[in-house]
Amino acid sequence: MPRVSQDQLDARRHEILTAARGCFARFGYEGATVRRLEEATGMSRGAIFHHFRDKESLFLAVAEDDAATMVETVARNGLVQVMRDLLGRAGNSDGDTAGWLGTQLEVSHRLRTDPAFAKRWAERSAAIADATRERLQRQRDAGVLRQDVPVEVLTQFLELAYDGLVLHLATGRPPGDLARVLDLVEDAVRRH
Amino acid sequence: MPRVSQDQLDARRHEILTAARGCFARFGYEGATVRRLEEATGMSRGAIFHHFRDKESLFLAVAEDDAATMVETVARNGLVQVMRDLLGRAGNSDGDTAGWLGTQLEVSHRLRTDPAFAKRWAERSAAIADATRERLQRQRDAGVLRQDVPVEVLTQFLELAYDGLVLHLATGRPPGDLARVLDLVEDAVRRH
Repeated sequence: MPRVSQDQLDARRHEILTAARGCFARFGYEGATVRRLEEATGMSRGAIFHHFRDKESLFLAVAEDDAATMVETVARNGLVQVMRDLLGRAGNSDGDTAGWLGTQLEVSHRLRTDPAFAKRWAERSAAIADATRERLQRQRDAGVLRQDVPVEVLTQFLELAYDGLVLHLATGRPPGDLARVLDLVEDAVRRH
Repeated sequence: MPRVSQDQLDARRHEILTAARGCFARFGYEGATVRRLEEATGMSRGAIFHHFRDKESLFLAVAEDDAATMVETVARNGLVQVMRDLLGRAGNSDGDTAGWLGTQLEVSHRLRTDPAFAKRWAERSAAIADATRERLQRQRDAGVLRQDVPVEVLTQFLELAYDGLVLHLATGRPPGDLARVLDLVEDAVRRH
């Protein structure tokens, strides 16, 4: 058998993540059975679980992949921009976006009751919070941020808005005036 | 057999709702089996489903009961006060509060894929939004609200914060600085 290069392994891993994301988005966590994951990826369960230990690890890998992209956008343009992008994609009748957010909510019961699962999820959230806090600190140093509220509180304020947006979109509610609401969120952390 | 009065029926219905709420909070929507609902209420399935058509109706009745209480608090003290109360109860290591919020998230997949279920849920949310909008309008008339943003946008801003709080608490995350974040939320809708 020919040796498989690291590049090929990485490419295969990326293909699985993309297909699994769509499958989780469409069927939910429980509904994304191993058979459906096989159909979505076009690979056998043996091939899938060569790359990921089990379905839980596959799900967390999709979420970690998402978080890495978010961290980059936060560092460059801030968490409000992440929210605007999310709102744009979901408003664009992209069922995948709402579906994937909804699947993340589905596991909330596990986040309270399964410490090992919660720990891996918390690492993902911490990376996003760290990037948000660092960007706000840079903005504070540049004088564009309000000075009367600690950066930590502003960070948690933006996270609260992000979580609210996730819940809104994940439950399939229409966007309403959320674009203007995000203007208000951004305005609330700025210096006047 | 003696006739059962309306008061007795109402009391029985209330008992079932309270016990079912705890059962849903502890086991989640799927995990709250009919057997567990029987144990929690101390009633037979026949008695339970005499009052509620099925498990879905029972779940929605608990949610509607919650919404009615919320509407009263919103009308009297506003949605920010609802959030402060929720934060206080959840911080008070009240597993029931976080559990019940988490169970509401669990049904998010259905909210996107089951129109009949989504419709009943939307009625509940609309009642809370209406109460919020009416209170904000009264505050605007009293001159305590900022004038440069439409009441509708302020309403949706407060709902976004509420949804964010629900997601935060439902996933078992610590309260952090959320009390100060809520001060910031309140401040963002006020006149300065």
